[in-house]
Amino acid sequence: MSNQRTINCLKALRDLRYQLELKDSKLPTLSKWKLHIVSENNFPTAAGLASSAAGFAAFVVAIAKLYQLPQSMSELSKIARQGSGSACRSLFGGFVAWEMGQLEDGSDSMAVPVNELNDWSSMKAIILVVSDSKKDTSSTMGMQLTVKTSDLFQERVKTVVPKRFVQMKEAIINKDFATFAELTMKDSNSFHATCLDSFPPIFYMNDTSRKIIKLCHKINEYYGESVVAYTFDAGPNAVLYYLEENENKLLPFIYKSFNQVPGWDSKYTSNDLQDFLKNFQESILPKFAEHNELDEEVHKGVSRVILSRVGAGPQSTDKCLIDSSTGLPK
Amino acid sequence: MSNQRTINCLKALRDLRYQLELKDSKLPTLSKWKLHIVSENNFPTAAGLASSAAGFAAFVVAIAKLYQLPQSMSELSKIARQGSGSACRSLFGGFVAWEMGQLEDGSDSMAVPVNELNDWSSMKAIILVVSDSKKDTSSTMGMQLTVKTSDLFQERVKTVVPKRFVQMKEAIINKDFATFAELTMKDSNSFHATCLDSFPPIFYMNDTSRKIIKLCHKINEYYGESVVAYTFDAGPNAVLYYLEENENKLLPFIYKSFNQVPGWDSKYTSNDLQDFLKNFQESILPKFAEHNELDEEVHKGVSRVILSRVGAGPQSTDKCLIDSSTGLPK
Repeated sequence: MSNQRTINCLKALRDLRYQLELKDSKLPTLSKWKLHIVSENNFPTAAGLASSAAGFAAFVVAIAKLYQLPQSMSELSKIARQGSGSACRSLFGGFVAWEMGQLEDGSDSMAVPVNELNDWSSMKAIILVVSDSKKDTSSTMGMQLTVKTSDLFQERVKTVVPKRFVQMKEAIINKDFATFAELTMKDSNSFHATCLDSFPPIFYMNDTSRKIIKLCHKINEYYGESVVAYTFDAGPNAVLYYLEENENKLLPFIYKSFNQVPGWDSKYTSNDLQDFLKNFQESILPKFAEHNELDEEVHKGVSRVILSRVGAGPQSTDKCLIDSSTGLPK
Repeated sequence: MSNQRTINCLKALRDLRYQLELKDSKLPTLSKWKLHIVSENNFPTAAGLASSAAGFAAFVVAIAKLYQLPQSMSELSKIARQGSGSACRSLFGGFVAWEMGQLEDGSDSMAVPVNELNDWSSMKAIILVVSDSKKDTSSTMGMQLTVKTSDLFQERVKTVVPKRFVQMKEAIINKDFATFAELTMKDSNSFHATCLDSFPPIFYMNDTSRKIIKLCHKINEYYGESVVAYTFDAGPNAVLYYLEENENKLLPFIYKSFNQVPGWDSKYTSNDLQDFLKNFQESILPKFAEHNELDEEVHKGVSRVILSRVGAGPQSTDKCLIDSSTGLPK
């Protein structure tokens, strides 16, 4: 195992197991055993789609289960965080808060759930995969450069984020989509602003990302209310949030713009999709002022649509990637 | 005359003329005369290339000359500022500081020269015209939105800019290109960061702008020193600054990247240009690591190269756009 962050996570998990074995000598000394770990990933990696967050969360929870560790998910999130910062959030389902903690070295920074899973189950997401090529700048290296060189970053950390963090938790608890949407979009913009303020500047978003942002603002403006919120992580891909009850407002616009992109038939029938187009043509287009026309090219920068919703955390599975007779990958 | 900002400038100039006439009754009462103003502009307008700054500076200085106003250029800059904020700077040649002033209403905000013209005459500029189509957002409206909605803007105004302003004046006075370059690039990034932090976000730069930024950082990295600085005003066009003595370092990279774009022959002979290409092929390419290769597509987003240098302010001319026999435009 050559990845230092993986080694650090594994060491922390082994230490916890070793504490258990010290207290109970009947336990097998798993902490001394070698591990053969085989993993599989069906998501684009290093593309700003949180693949490493998902991977490290799965890894930490799987080993913790093997070692029968009694620690809570929040305690385990401190370990996952050493693999990939945002992995700490991925140990839970639903909406999760990544608390900064008090200690200078960040060792008490961990994730706690904001709401119970499915408490706001009508929240859905559309991921527009803008590019699944690898990024110029990795999230971790980018963040380090921003902390070191951006003059505006300190203001974001000390003033902007703490205030938004409290407002965001409240919005989620109150299921207040308008506030959730505004905070989500503003915080995405603020994060990318501090990336741009780094030196040399870091650009995760591209012209397609920008067109998607404009489209979302046009849609909300058209309805005079927030039916969609965009957010961009450390990459050009857009995550759009919306409520199931607004699907018939949002999807005509989105499907009209991205119907040439694969992924729609994973969740919608061809009848549903036809209805979206029909709604756009018949209800929206006539009321859509000419100067506000949609960009007919935006789909060209998008390679895939992933339809999703707020989901569960790591799940146990019976599927095994190791051939139990040889101990080698299948 | 329908443009309110032009009307405001003219009113302020007329008031100053009227003061003169009150003091000296022998003066013709030009302040009461109607004016017939014809102007011509050879620069792309509303494209983020400071065309309105140039236009309002020329307008204010021309009327002030007609009215024989005794006010200094700095005093006149307060009037030009009402036409277009940055017009106040364009009343001088060389490097100009736009002082914020002390008054709440901004009425004492004006421009003062930082150095004498030609004091740092080896400073040259390359403007890469990325798009001369009109912008989505005008500079003035964009700035108003940023002031109103960006959380990071206050930090930029209160902390970041005042510190940089002092350092920048010092760098210009000391002809310290390395410091000048770093401050120029950082301040451009910081400005665009607060645009992105506005709500809805404002994007003046596009993918081509970004590629140019990356190219500049590559060039400085290659030489291990600052030979070029980029800055972007409220538009996607790049202004690159460099010193004449570094021309043979910089131009091989820039001409290699943009030789398909028109504008080069306005200042260079075809022999000069051949030499730049030859230098690139023979001296630079062999030492340029493969992973650092130049983007062969960047020229596609650029429509024109404008070769310039730090110039003079408004100049008097004998050329007249009015037919003196009819009083109408020629």
